[in-house]
Parts: sequence; C-alpha cells; structure tokens
Amino acid sequence: MSDRFHETVDRYWGQFFEISRTVHREQSAFQHIQVLENRLWGRVLVLDGVVQTTEADEHRYHEALVHVPLTSLATPRRVLIIGGGDGGTLREVLKHPVERVVMVEIDGAVIDACRTHMPALSAGAFDDQRVDLIVGDGIAHVAHSDETFDAILVDSTDPGDGAHSEAPGGVLFTDAFYADAARRLSADGILAAQHAVPFLDGPVHRAKAQRLARAFALSGRYEVPVPTYTGGPLGLGWGSAATDPGAVPAATLASRLAARGLAGALRFYSPARHHALFALSADDGIDPPARD
Amino acid sequence: MSDRFHETVDRYWGQFFEISRTVHREQSAFQHIQVLENRLWGRVLVLDGVVQTTEADEHRYHEALVHVPLTSLATPRRVLIIGGGDGGTLREVLKHPVERVVMVEIDGAVIDACRTHMPALSAGAFDDQRVDLIVGDGIAHVAHSDETFDAILVDSTDPGDGAHSEAPGGVLFTDAFYADAARRLSADGILAAQHAVPFLDGPVHRAKAQRLARAFALSGRYEVPVPTYTGGPLGLGWGSAATDPGAVPAATLASRLAARGLAGALRFYSPARHHALFALSADDGIDPPARD
Repeated sequence: MSDRFHETVDRYWGQFFEISRTVHREQSAFQHIQVLENRLWGRVLVLDGVVQTTEADEHRYHEALVHVPLTSLATPRRVLIIGGGDGGTLREVLKHPVERVVMVEIDGAVIDACRTHMPALSAGAFDDQRVDLIVGDGIAHVAHSDETFDAILVDSTDPGDGAHSEAPGGVLFTDAFYADAARRLSADGILAAQHAVPFLDGPVHRAKAQRLARAFALSGRYEVPVPTYTGGPLGLGWGSAATDPGAVPAATLASRLAARGLAGALRFYSPARHHALFALSADDGIDPPARD
Repeated sequence: MSDRFHETVDRYWGQFFEISRTVHREQSAFQHIQVLENRLWGRVLVLDGVVQTTEADEHRYHEALVHVPLTSLATPRRVLIIGGGDGGTLREVLKHPVERVVMVEIDGAVIDACRTHMPALSAGAFDDQRVDLIVGDGIAHVAHSDETFDAILVDSTDPGDGAHSEAPGGVLFTDAFYADAARRLSADGILAAQHAVPFLDGPVHRAKAQRLARAFALSGRYEVPVPTYTGGPLGLGWGSAATDPGAVPAATLASRLAARGLAGALRFYSPARHHALFALSADDGIDPPARD
C-alpha cells in the first residue's frame, strides 16, 4: 500500500512523495514528527508537514552549513549547534579537529526518532566524547552562557519571518538572538544559519539577512542546492566580526581540508564548491509573480 | 475552481501545482501540450506531463543555456537552435550581436501555443529579421545542412536515454547527432545542450556526457538551479573543438558583457555565476538509493 504525502510549505505548489511506509509518527511537545519511507529518497524526516531532510540528499545541506564556516577558520576548536536534532550537522562538525561541541536541541523527541529510524544521519556522533548534548532552549543558552565558540551553527526548522512566527524556530532569527550569538563568538568566529529559500521566500530571506547585518561587522549569504528543499537552492546566512568565508582563498581551503584528512572525503563540499555557493544573482530573493 | 496537477517525471516523487486555469490543451502531432496557470509560478508549459518552463523561473534555464556559450565566444555571429519552441532561448540569443539565428523546432504547435499564451517567453523574438525559423526536423537539418555556426544550442524536451527513448527529443542525444553537430560548428564554436537532472537521473546524464566526449575534442558539463526543474540543478553539457567555456577568465566575460550592453542587464547570468555553474561535486550524477 502506498500513500501520497503532499508538503505544505506553499499553498499553491509543492512536492509529493509516495510513501511506502510510515516508519514513525508522533506529536511531541513542540511539533508533529513523521519519519516516512520513499523509494527515491529513502527515509524522510517531516516536522509539522515540512520536509526537513532525506537520506539521499541530507549531506548537501549539512556539508554546506558546516564545512563553509569550519574550513574558513584556521583552528575551529569549539562549536555550538542550535537545533540539529537529526544529528547530521553534528556528524559533519566532528570531521574537523574540534575539541568540544555543544548542541542545544529543544525537542528531544526529534533526536530520539532520528537516532532510531534514521541512524545514518548521526552515524554515532551523539556518542562522541567531545559532544555535550543539551535538550533545551537554544535561545536561553546563548543568552545566559559565558562560553565562547569558534562557530555557531543554527540548524533549525524554517519558521518564516522570526518577527511573528509561532513555530519553534521563530525566535532563532530575531535581533536579540543574533546579538547574543555575536557575544558568544571568538574574535574570528563565524555564525552560519539556514535562512529559507530565497527564490520562494524572498522577503523572509531578506529580513534575516538584514538582522545579521545589524548584529555583525561582516555578514552575507550563500546558498546550496538540495533537491528536496524545493523552490530553488536553500539560502544560508553568515555573520562574523573578522572572518569573511567568501574571501578565503581556495588554496587555503584546500590545504586545511588536506591537513584535516578531508581532501576528497566529502560528497558535496570542495574548495571550488565553497566559492560557487557565494555566487548569487540579482534574482535571488525575488518575489515570484502572481502570488496572493 | 482549482485542479491539482502532478508532474510525472518520477513514479515515486514529484511536484504538484494547484491549477487556477487550464489556458490551453492540445494533442499535437508530436506530444500533448498544456499551458496551465498557477498562482506561484505564473503560466506553466507542460509537454507530455512534464514541466518545460514557467514564467517565474524560465530565465534561469534560458540564460544558462545561452549566455554560457555565447559569452565564452569573442564573436558569436551565427547560432543554431534545435528545439526551443517556447522562444526563451531565441530571446536570449538575440541579446548578443548575432547576425543570423536558425531555429529548427519540430513542433509548430508548441511555438503557436507559447506565442499566444506565454508571450513573455519569446518577447517578439520570432519577428526579428535575423531569425530563420524552420518548423521541421533538427536532426535532418544538422545532418544535411552545409551551414556552420558559432554556437549550436540544443533546447529539447528531456527524453531520457537517447539510445532507446521514443520521445521527440530522444534522437538529439545520439552519437550520430553529436557527430553531425560537430561538423556544423565553426573552428572555435560551442555546442550546449540540456542534459537531464544529474542528481535524479545519473545514468542518463553520464551517458550523454560520454557521447559528447566521443564527438568533441573538448567537452564537459555544468548545471543550473531552476526551481521548477525538480530533483536538483539541471545538467547541461557542452562540446567544442577549441573553446573551453569553463576556462574563460571572468574579466574576459565581464568585458564582453559590457561591450554587448549586457552588463547588469541579465537576471541570473553573471561572470561569477558562469564559473560557479562549473563547480560540480562528486555527488552529481549519483543514483538515489532505494529506487527500483
């Protein structure tokens, strides 16, 4: 038996999956969680009706979120992940010679569901001795912690405009959060955050970029094509006091990858891809026509 | 009233559109033609159930297919378009200082439907004095013509593997066609062709790249993210006896755009984008898991 799942990101358009099996379904304290099985994409994590990641293409998002900032840093030692319950971001971070990773995920049910039903996402990362996993409020953690990090990675659901969203990730895109995050970064540190799909959600993407620009001396955006994030490449934003990840020479990136044993070891990320992700166009962030 | 259209490229996954109006529907001698209206993407051209182009994102595909080869050439004077019935490729070609464009489209009904119902695609291009429009067989034209061109652009439907496809575009990806096309190119000329979506159709994409490599001294591929071509960025292939479009310096591209009055005038294409389109990854052309 096959059911058809329609993603509900947009009212007039979206993607559908033929579901060969519903592997897991649960209403957590924060959101509706589903793990669905599809013959093309493998297992699919769906939160509140929105596709978060699939086994077949999750590496593109996670490699872009993690390796762009971490390879832009000479010595990334301490990393904070906000969100990231599926474990894919953590898995990629641990490929670098980091000493400590704090991960603050608000919904422990997502962690449990993914460890059980999509184990390739974390691939054992949650058992790594360098990891301090906190099931709790990432906003409060950033506001009240005294610890500083070389990278802060915001791997959240896509809440729309943080100014008014009620979704769990909404508060991750406010001026207050970015200001707190900026204080938690080391002098050269970089924050990177997923920032919605520019082509489809231009106003949301632009609003997030503007908030980053208010909180950081340097900021910008890049984008990554992930097939099951529909509407065009996913936007990401970055902010830093001192490091522009788009300006690190390819040769520097290549030598860092080699020194970390990552040359040729990644599926999507490379120095050439790194710079290609920063080549944006005038039509990124447009508002599609005829939408009402 | 709204109907829901499901694209049928893949059996297990795809995109759906809420259709506010069916603007046109026709069975031509070659294929089933629909022009549908959607509130997010505008009007949508569908051939045999597959989305060919939408008003909101057609420029990305057409700019990548046209401006990559034409800006890679110092003096593109004569251009041959195979297919391209919607007129978008012709519109972009005519932005360069070309002297003559031959366009051979097998299905005049597609031209008529798009001129009538999606006029922004051609934007008057069919009335340009430089254009020789032939409704006929592009394969035969390339095999039997004595004319040579600086660029040949293959803007066809996506027929799957040309070795066995029955779709109209299938014969456009054979060794015989590429060999004929190579003979129709000027010494520095470039052929560019759409080549399926690598992430979703890895074997088809690879087969097409191998055929290009057999027919041309230089060949390669690039890819463009077009939101309504689902499954990841669209692959394109190129072949030439002497010109590698991926190796033209950005400064050269920029000065050519400026000389042609195109600096800042395009929505997607730029010298930075040009080179970014050539940054591919090890996971381009993978076979997604669990497909049967």
